[in-house]
Amino acid sequence: MIEYNQKVIRYYQEVSELCIHYLSIDGVIFGFHQNQLKVLLLRWKGTNEWSLPGGFIKKTESVDDAAQRIMQERTGLYALYLRQFHVFGQIERYNQEETWRKINLPIQGVQWSERTISMGYYALVEHSKVVPMPDLLTEECRWWSLDELPALLFDHNQIIDVALGSLRKQLSEQPLGHLLPEAFTIPELQRLHETILGHSLDSRNFYRKMMASTALERLAERRVGTPHKTPYLYRFKKEPDAEKGS
Amino acid sequence: MIEYNQKVIRYYQEVSELCIHYLSIDGVIFGFHQNQLKVLLLRWKGTNEWSLPGGFIKKTESVDDAAQRIMQERTGLYALYLRQFHVFGQIERYNQEETWRKINLPIQGVQWSERTISMGYYALVEHSKVVPMPDLLTEECRWWSLDELPALLFDHNQIIDVALGSLRKQLSEQPLGHLLPEAFTIPELQRLHETILGHSLDSRNFYRKMMASTALERLAERRVGTPHKTPYLYRFKKEPDAEKGS
Repeated sequence: MIEYNQKVIRYYQEVSELCIHYLSIDGVIFGFHQNQLKVLLLRWKGTNEWSLPGGFIKKTESVDDAAQRIMQERTGLYALYLRQFHVFGQIERYNQEETWRKINLPIQGVQWSERTISMGYYALVEHSKVVPMPDLLTEECRWWSLDELPALLFDHNQIIDVALGSLRKQLSEQPLGHLLPEAFTIPELQRLHETILGHSLDSRNFYRKMMASTALERLAERRVGTPHKTPYLYRFKKEPDAEKGS
Repeated sequence: MIEYNQKVIRYYQEVSELCIHYLSIDGVIFGFHQNQLKVLLLRWKGTNEWSLPGGFIKKTESVDDAAQRIMQERTGLYALYLRQFHVFGQIERYNQEETWRKINLPIQGVQWSERTISMGYYALVEHSKVVPMPDLLTEECRWWSLDELPALLFDHNQIIDVALGSLRKQLSEQPLGHLLPEAFTIPELQRLHETILGHSLDSRNFYRKMMASTALERLAERRVGTPHKTPYLYRFKKEPDAEKGS
């Protein structure tokens, strides 16, 4: 336990020396699997308190590189397609004293700034294909359904709301190929869109929009084994800038 | 001149004490008038060097408030509808030494961080309705056509490119009412969209899209004085969240 405390102190001393004060990164990693959208949360060691994965930017690294490094260090996930979506810059984003009491880290005496401006990044993964791992500060990574989120530390419930709004608005610019089998039907693609958007779509409009898109190509073979019909299969074109959802 | 130098030094000393190091705000203020889109640039005192208006965030103010204050201090424009669009977080965004030599400010000895992460905000105004004013550091504010921009200080040409891309993508979420007369025809609205997008639009599709929008309402009177036709006039509804372009 003393050794653990020393590790935590060393971690925060390093952050204080090497990182930019006043600035942090929080990551909203959305996970899609079997037509369900979830979000990755971390449980802090020895508590029942959850938060997003987050961390600080080194003086010697770009903000985008910091986002990648932090997500890898805190969750084990790497090479994410991370996208900036908002800067949370209010003076008092949350009750600091209460928050730190809940986490109860042994970091008295470590110098840090009195407020933190957080830059939000989001990513979207097929969550059955990745295995998140907790880090020094946490003991569990878990995928939570968006409609069953607990009350999170910091202002992280609000950050998730804003991230979800951005993801939905930017759906047509998202690469979605990695969330589907290599060959898929238009109804399968529609269900993916519906899951992310949180509402159903008109099938004829969706079909028409997808046919007008240049991102998809129809394959020679059809899906077999479906009673009464053999729907066409599609895939995202390999060209750069393809793999977009619409 | 000595007095001016002292003022500049005092300004930067205050920034160094009161503001968050490593972080800045740059504003891309787009101006629309008579179907032309321009951008507001400042010429630095005693030089022929231009940049966007920018500044630093006080430890005691929110990032959005800082953006408003900075734009007001540096250009005289206030109550802008400013929107975050991107954080420029590369380690070496531009050649610092060269840039500072070009501006030639008398600020030797003022402590500042070795890099700056800039948060970009943009706004869109009717530029004939506002009168920008230079500040202590600059001697001229001028509206520049986007296709005639000079080589700017810092990485500000790139910041304008990214801002323009965001404005075009987010056109449907922009309030546009303040850029048009209170009552306008659909072709006038179309020309506004075309000016911002930088390309022409199909009139029938545009008309159909606007008729499907809930933001517009048709007025009882029509435009008179146009030979052979009297087109309908429209305005943006007053409801909250109206005044959107589509």
